Amino acid sequence: MTEGPTLYLSAFIDELVRSGVEHIVISPGSRSTPLAVLAAEHPQLRVWMIVDERSAGFFALGLAKARRVPVALLCTSGTAAANYMPAIAEAKLARVPLIVLTADRPHELRDVGAPQTIDQIAMYGRQVKWFMEMPIPEAAPLMLRHARMTAARAAAEAMQQPLGPVHLNFPLREPLLPDLDHPDLFAAGRDGDRAYVEVTFGVKQLPPETVQALAEQLKAHGRGLIVCGPMDMPAFAEAVTELAAVLGYPVLADPLSQLRSGSHRQDVIIDAYDAFLRDERTAESLEPEVILRFGAMPVSKPLLQYMNRHADSRLIVVDDGGWRDPTLLASDMISADPVQLCRSLADKLAGQAGGPTGIRSGYPPSGRDGAWLAEWQQLNEISRRVMQEGALDPEIEDLFEGRVFTELRELLPAGTVLLAGNSMPIRDLDAFYAVDERGVRMAGNRGANGIDGLVSTAMGISAAGERVVLVLGDLSFYHDMNGLLAAKLYQLPITIIVVNNDGGGIFSFLPQADLPRHYELLFGTPIGLDFRHAAAMYGGRYTKADTWELFREAVSQAVSADGLDVIEVPTDRRANAEHHRRIWRLIAERIQSRQAAGREG
Amino acid sequence: MTEGPTLYLSAFIDELVRSGVEHIVISPGSRSTPLAVLAAEHPQLRVWMIVDERSAGFFALGLAKARRVPVALLCTSGTAAANYMPAIAEAKLARVPLIVLTADRPHELRDVGAPQTIDQIAMYGRQVKWFMEMPIPEAAPLMLRHARMTAARAAAEAMQQPLGPVHLNFPLREPLLPDLDHPDLFAAGRDGDRAYVEVTFGVKQLPPETVQALAEQLKAHGRGLIVCGPMDMPAFAEAVTELAAVLGYPVLADPLSQLRSGSHRQDVIIDAYDAFLRDERTAESLEPEVILRFGAMPVSKPLLQYMNRHADSRLIVVDDGGWRDPTLLASDMISADPVQLCRSLADKLAGQAGGPTGIRSGYPPSGRDGAWLAEWQQLNEISRRVMQEGALDPEIEDLFEGRVFTELRELLPAGTVLLAGNSMPIRDLDAFYAVDERGVRMAGNRGANGIDGLVSTAMGISAAGERVVLVLGDLSFYHDMNGLLAAKLYQLPITIIVVNNDGGGIFSFLPQADLPRHYELLFGTPIGLDFRHAAAMYGGRYTKADTWELFREAVSQAVSADGLDVIEVPTDRRANAEHHRRIWRLIAERIQSRQAAGREG
Repeated sequence: MTEGPTLYLSAFIDELVRSGVEHIVISPGSRSTPLAVLAAEHPQLRVWMIVDERSAGFFALGLAKARRVPVALLCTSGTAAANYMPAIAEAKLARVPLIVLTADRPHELRDVGAPQTIDQIAMYGRQVKWFMEMPIPEAAPLMLRHARMTAARAAAEAMQQPLGPVHLNFPLREPLLPDLDHPDLFAAGRDGDRAYVEVTFGVKQLPPETVQALAEQLKAHGRGLIVCGPMDMPAFAEAVTELAAVLGYPVLADPLSQLRSGSHRQDVIIDAYDAFLRDERTAESLEPEVILRFGAMPVSKPLLQYMNRHADSRLIVVDDGGWRDPTLLASDMISADPVQLCRSLADKLAGQAGGPTGIRSGYPPSGRDGAWLAEWQQLNEISRRVMQEGALDPEIEDLFEGRVFTELRELLPAGTVLLAGNSMPIRDLDAFYAVDERGVRMAGNRGANGIDGLVSTAMGISAAGERVVLVLGDLSFYHDMNGLLAAKLYQLPITIIVVNNDGGGIFSFLPQADLPRHYELLFGTPIGLDFRHAAAMYGGRYTKADTWELFREAVSQAVSADGLDVIEVPTDRRANAEHHRRIWRLIAERIQSRQAAGREG
Repeated sequence: MTEGPTLYLSAFIDELVRSGVEHIVISPGSRSTPLAVLAAEHPQLRVWMIVDERSAGFFALGLAKARRVPVALLCTSGTAAANYMPAIAEAKLARVPLIVLTADRPHELRDVGAPQTIDQIAMYGRQVKWFMEMPIPEAAPLMLRHARMTAARAAAEAMQQPLGPVHLNFPLREPLLPDLDHPDLFAAGRDGDRAYVEVTFGVKQLPPETVQALAEQLKAHGRGLIVCGPMDMPAFAEAVTELAAVLGYPVLADPLSQLRSGSHRQDVIIDAYDAFLRDERTAESLEPEVILRFGAMPVSKPLLQYMNRHADSRLIVVDDGGWRDPTLLASDMISADPVQLCRSLADKLAGQAGGPTGIRSGYPPSGRDGAWLAEWQQLNEISRRVMQEGALDPEIEDLFEGRVFTELRELLPAGTVLLAGNSMPIRDLDAFYAVDERGVRMAGNRGANGIDGLVSTAMGISAAGERVVLVLGDLSFYHDMNGLLAAKLYQLPITIIVVNNDGGGIFSFLPQADLPRHYELLFGTPIGLDFRHAAAMYGGRYTKADTWELFREAVSQAVSADGLDVIEVPTDRRANAEHHRRIWRLIAERIQSRQAAGREG
């Protein structure tokens, strides 16, 4: 490759770095050679070489989640690029900024049967936010401007609300080896030290009069709820809990809302709604007037059903640039920054606050006198107690999956990232991890909720320098076992807890469990793998935690150790579903007996 | 699910079967429940449950390749469907008929933040031939007609030349369990025993006068070549070799043309062109007047360069409905069935043949007197001899990768499917597997030439009842290690030979090898895995074949055994490249010395 094309590509790589890209995840290939070599050559770009592009995609996703800045991905042409699709689909919905760079054959070799050439133009369809077909690289002044502008813009498009993946496709001609002899390889088209384009993002705020009107409307409703789903804004926890306190609203906090663990006020947080809203009478009696919802939809199905049940209550959804309302009940859609909105609402309300006024008696409890919030708090406390006792019940002979999170809550050091797999782990995290103050960051792949890519996502989080504990099921672990290679090659510290119920445990909770035929074939899907071999192949330690003592010991050691730990928790699908159901029944009974006592008293 | 939606879906499944679908590959999931259960319930459909959808896609690809009929794929919504993308991209280019069925949320749950919901409308873009968004299932008479017609049409679209994948997206509402109590579940909308639509494909033929004209043009050119790339038409080998014999043209046969092994005439077949066309003088001297090319472009790069060198020769490409000419040199593109065309050309020529007429002397040899064909045959023989000697050279201390195929040629039972991985194995197969008569079917994933999905493709071929031997590199084996689960769960017989050069061996042959920095990071990419653990995890036998004696013993046992065999051949990347180069040099020397002798003599 001559100097001209080299300089176009080196300017592009350099400008990615100036635009905030710190990491690039590369998979091996020939057509991508010039970009890969230039990335490796750039002094400020960290290269991660991940052979399996599917894993590479999720590895980049994990890195970008942890760092909250765009991460670049690079692969060669053909099916390599197709392997990114799952991670890209997840990134789009989970709003994670990725910059996907695919090498392609030049135009003269497309759709004529040339090797390793698939149609890469807009190949990710609507799974990406933005796509550009790049030009054949050349170093004319206008083209160097194009290289730098496009790099800056790609980063900006990825970081624009709602964040997400973008895709650039590079036609590259042979020879592919870049000219590394240029004395100032990364300076082409650049003037001075600053970025070629400094990109500044405004924060979307409502006009003061709109905030004022909304504040008044909320104040008029005593029985309000704040529902917080998956989101990841560090300042949000404090802002939303302060607002809730002013309003006297409970905050129903999904584990991925980042409200379950931290130094913000926790008295307003309801973390056991998934348990007590399963009881129909309770769900019916707790009639809200208004619901203010932030983030993605929470994982809890009882909450969804509760919202559907009270379809007449006003539902205000705050979503900065998106439209996430699977209930189709939103009466108000507010496109604004959630932190700013909470703060300005709290300010307005605090300025005019005089404490709750007006007293209502009877059931359902009124919000004016604090009874509404108190009721939720009591239900939460009852449920939490039953769950704690139920999880730790010494009568349970086998290992109960929910207890993994009850235990982890005691074991995880402050600052750990706790990544929960889909299907059962995220639901058990929701139910069994009670709010605490230690500042555990909870994560999941809850954009598209796939069971794929979890191991690699965890590796990416670890690569970002975080301590990460991944809890996932055996099918999910198997699905992304290739992700373990990163732990071996990069000596990444990581703790993986495999809840092994030998198959699709979640179906034991669903109507599929009643199928007269084909259940094990289609839903049970036992795979019977001994993961000891996987740990051995990738140089990890392996523990089969048959008892909670062993579990605690293994986790305690793993979370401060280097390298890979695989801790397997063998459970029984059917018994596990039974334990869960018994706990839900017990909670309903306790609540009912308390209310009966209340009515009698 | 009530009777109506159930009957729509059961009619669809039933009509797939009537349209020739024998196998459906399913991955576990909830949204796909009705289709999965109905597929399992259908008495004539074989269900394969493959957990990892990426592997499932390639498994279906292998099945469809082996059976030459459409194979159905079914998965749930979300990233599950995204995992099919690599296999679909391969199927499109390799022309393999797949019917991809994705379950989706119904319209009211799309793009509103509902769980496990990505945008699945036309999500595979131009990687599929045909896409249909299906209706919400219901059993009105018109809708039952729609279900059956669409199933028939999906199979027909997949089987229409050029064959390829099609995609149907099914919006499905809860409840998802189908009503299995219907007395005649698969009879809805069906009248009698025949298919709802009997689809008949014509065979594309040229009009007789066009064949006549073409025959005369070919006859006028003594120095013609027939080039056969990857294709899979059982009758083609005989048809094309008969034509070649009549014309006195050599047939340059890619290993995947299915001309390298079988009972057709072999005297016209040139199988070592990749070796001797590397020599510039030889390539220059062999000046063709016309090239008749069938199938995809052969793997050999020297052949491509040879065709580019002789850009003035007339290039006639025969491609039934496609346009595959990466040389951009085609002067004639013939859209017709290759077998029919060969036969009708041979008929015309045989009818008017009187043997070669006219004598030309000197070099390059004339075709009229058979000298042209004889020259190719001699070069082939010299090269073949050097390669045979070179591969078996007892002086080579380490294991030479090319020899894997020299050895396999002696070891494989008739009827074996030999599947070669991309990068080096397909190239070594090309060079080192000399033509034979035993009828080994050679296969590869040469649509997009990815290193992914090879293990699963082999499993699919095995699932179709074929004996399969897969040869692939360590990176490729690692990439699709999840594919091994099928061998464990279904006890599929399969022999996997892993040529382990610990990384990207092909780059040792490319300019990248001269990189001053970053070579091992970006291209060598050693992963250092001990595959013994993988074999153990998936219940396979493992052999490290350190010597050729061990190799022969292991392969001989494996090809008649049940279950999974992993035979690892440890090689050295650099030494291997050197051995190859020495053989190419030696061939060039022998050819030059022969020509020198010829000139002197």
